[in-house]
Amino acid sequence: MTTPLPAAQPVQHNHLSPLLTDLYQLTMMHGYWRNAMHEQSAVFDVYFRRNPYDGGYAVWAGLEPVLEYVLGLHFDADSLAYLGSLELFEPAFLKALEGWRFSGSIESFPEGSAVFPHEPLLTVRAPLWEAQLIETALLNTLNFQTLIASKAARCVSVMGNGTLVEFGTRRAQGPDGALGAARAAYIGGAAATSNVLAGQRFGLPVVGTHAHAWVESFPDELSAFRAYAALHPDTTTLLLDTIDTLASGLPNAVTVARELREQGHELRAVRLDSGDLAYLSRRVRSALDAAGFPGVKIMASNDLSEEVIQSVIREGGRLDLYAVGTQLVTGGGPGGGALGGVYKLAELAGTLRMKLTGDPSKTSLPGAKRVWRGVNAEGEFVWDVIGLDTDTRPPSPGERVSDPSNPLKSSRLPAGLDWHNPRQVVVAGGQRVQSPETLQAVQARARAELSRLPEGTLRLLNPHTYRVSLSGALQASRDALIGQLQSDLHG
Amino acid sequence: MTTPLPAAQPVQHNHLSPLLTDLYQLTMMHGYWRNAMHEQSAVFDVYFRRNPYDGGYAVWAGLEPVLEYVLGLHFDADSLAYLGSLELFEPAFLKALEGWRFSGSIESFPEGSAVFPHEPLLTVRAPLWEAQLIETALLNTLNFQTLIASKAARCVSVMGNGTLVEFGTRRAQGPDGALGAARAAYIGGAAATSNVLAGQRFGLPVVGTHAHAWVESFPDELSAFRAYAALHPDTTTLLLDTIDTLASGLPNAVTVARELREQGHELRAVRLDSGDLAYLSRRVRSALDAAGFPGVKIMASNDLSEEVIQSVIREGGRLDLYAVGTQLVTGGGPGGGALGGVYKLAELAGTLRMKLTGDPSKTSLPGAKRVWRGVNAEGEFVWDVIGLDTDTRPPSPGERVSDPSNPLKSSRLPAGLDWHNPRQVVVAGGQRVQSPETLQAVQARARAELSRLPEGTLRLLNPHTYRVSLSGALQASRDALIGQLQSDLHG
Repeated sequence: MTTPLPAAQPVQHNHLSPLLTDLYQLTMMHGYWRNAMHEQSAVFDVYFRRNPYDGGYAVWAGLEPVLEYVLGLHFDADSLAYLGSLELFEPAFLKALEGWRFSGSIESFPEGSAVFPHEPLLTVRAPLWEAQLIETALLNTLNFQTLIASKAARCVSVMGNGTLVEFGTRRAQGPDGALGAARAAYIGGAAATSNVLAGQRFGLPVVGTHAHAWVESFPDELSAFRAYAALHPDTTTLLLDTIDTLASGLPNAVTVARELREQGHELRAVRLDSGDLAYLSRRVRSALDAAGFPGVKIMASNDLSEEVIQSVIREGGRLDLYAVGTQLVTGGGPGGGALGGVYKLAELAGTLRMKLTGDPSKTSLPGAKRVWRGVNAEGEFVWDVIGLDTDTRPPSPGERVSDPSNPLKSSRLPAGLDWHNPRQVVVAGGQRVQSPETLQAVQARARAELSRLPEGTLRLLNPHTYRVSLSGALQASRDALIGQLQSDLHG
Repeated sequence: MTTPLPAAQPVQHNHLSPLLTDLYQLTMMHGYWRNAMHEQSAVFDVYFRRNPYDGGYAVWAGLEPVLEYVLGLHFDADSLAYLGSLELFEPAFLKALEGWRFSGSIESFPEGSAVFPHEPLLTVRAPLWEAQLIETALLNTLNFQTLIASKAARCVSVMGNGTLVEFGTRRAQGPDGALGAARAAYIGGAAATSNVLAGQRFGLPVVGTHAHAWVESFPDELSAFRAYAALHPDTTTLLLDTIDTLASGLPNAVTVARELREQGHELRAVRLDSGDLAYLSRRVRSALDAAGFPGVKIMASNDLSEEVIQSVIREGGRLDLYAVGTQLVTGGGPGGGALGGVYKLAELAGTLRMKLTGDPSKTSLPGAKRVWRGVNAEGEFVWDVIGLDTDTRPPSPGERVSDPSNPLKSSRLPAGLDWHNPRQVVVAGGQRVQSPETLQAVQARARAELSRLPEGTLRLLNPHTYRVSLSGALQASRDALIGQLQSDLHG
């Protein structure tokens, strides 16, 4: 069964507590406040260093819940009382927190955008103590949402005309893990979720079949199938493997499909939940077709992943619906489990800041930045350039740009690209400057953007590496700051 | 900094919505109700088939949040209105849900117990439609909590006298992913969390250091260290790698340690966040010792896992505090990401039920069962036997028992074991029969039980396989039911 889709994106009941943060954010805020630095204007960027799943892209997700969090955030009496009980904070600081509100601006890729490593995906410009507090919850949401939206996109990218549905609540990482995954999976291309609360909160279509326990609760499988079909004669999906898929589930499903048809209804689908899905789906398809039921769809739901889906299709599997659970809602598999998005200070009180560290791969990009995306005449995304925010001229053909993680590797930009800024200011002066988008619009953006990536970028294994470069001016600015930090250090 | 630990375990603000479930639970409930089967007495077991992380055990966690969920669950007007809007349910069924409350009983291993594959970890006895509804949220919570508690235990098992702290909120799977992970990590042996909300909700100690942004916000690192130490002169941990761990962070930290001592305080710790932790920690330890600060602890926090911790220690690393983030809160690594716990019907209206399927490894164990744990004279756990619940005699020496996943593999039980039932009835007649435990008590149980496992069971790789067997009577009962199902099918 499926349910109709409401038109608007309802509010997410996210955790809005100011305590959903690491303790050090609060102790640093205290320190900034005590040193009268808390009102200094700061610029922080969110970015990640490696695509999830060792893939060629990520689908940016989580912006709307982040905006609800940031704009709703304040310190209520209960939170302040708890902070007081820790005996770490001066009363005058806690008093100052009573008036804390986010007053800054946020610039971001729209949700559903195709994004890549090293790009400033979201930039916060705010007084230092405002920008600092929100780091933890912001990363928590963006990392997880982007991880799952990207996983859904990978699954959809290999299923041809198949349909993805999210069935993972029981294996998700807590209740919000399930709810957030349902939302993000929809952005990445899932058609529906089994999670009823996600349906209510986010206006997602909800779908379901029945469990083995249903069959076991009746004297025999045929009685169980008949009883279920009687409940929803036009939207029933029957689970075939409680006893034996081909020997029992399939013939009983055909019997029920015939009985439904005699009553003017059609069986919607059957579900395979164990065994060799390529083989079983071919056998089930043939049998259904031969019995006069070419319209009955076949769903599979047994520990699916994008790799399993691809393999089943390559072996001639005949599946229409892919119910993906664990791997989708936890973003599992190699290179998965978590997206390593970070939030790094780029500028404070008008001067550039960066983290040097002993690990060059963890060095951050200093200064307020902007992103340019170069599109060719066919509308294909070809090249992204990260430049200084003050440089408002688009990149030029022949301009020398460098690799974000390897300054020695440089290239010249090709001609014939049309450059635009893919990011938008979504919050200014602590206020939204855009209405929330519907999740359907976000899903449509993701689908459209992924269709514009260069060939091979969507490949699961060893994909094409989308070009992301630093502008010459940004590279020079970083080199100068590294030189200055090292000269302070050694000399 | 750390905070004192309150004595009692506060209520978890879990999602108590009856909609936090898969749609099919509700449509099956509808079907049971329409067929007047909903009040039939059902027995469902929770179990998993493989230890997380390919390890030798799991730490059972999530019971208390499950009890809060099950006992608080009811259908409010808002939920019923949403269900009505789906146009899947008869009004009379929705009316019947108004009075729905869990009235059954729950038997479970206590939280913090060491548990193993195939064992019925938690058994629900309830009217069918009550037992069915709770499946999804119950598995969601138990799978995730057990996954993370087990990960924490693995980390603690290799760190000798080191201390585990949980620092993963920004990489967790949503807000509850973070909160739930903080709770479960504590059960598995973490001493504290960085998550302030988890501190408030669960009464956990909260700890923190400072970020790179703190150092970058000051004119130089020494000023930044001094300012932070001034805030919390007795509980400061300084992050050494913003510029260069050995060339800058370490000498500046020693300077601040001296200044603190002159003022009658002691620097608490330093933190390493990049580079070769074994090498750097030895260098930092020597320098601190040579400067007269043997009491300053060393913390590490760079993508740690149990394997990294073990490797650093083997290479002579000198770490005192292990701040584990991503890998801990997502239960990452091989064999991780999700625990595949399931919830299977074992008995209905007094008759045995099981799922056969085409996959022998997914066949369930029929009937209400009990667990016997055999302990030797040294107090070591040696053997668990799963038997029929009606068989209240403990297993006997020489009794033939069989492997849960391979009926052809049988053994004889040794003599000299003392057998007890490790599970407890925690809910009867829809009411708690025990007060909630403190998380400290649960953590202590986990520590005690893990110390009683056979040698090698805690090993990270290729651990000793703890013995879990089926009693002869249970095996016979399963064989009889399989025979009956197959005879119905084929003959």
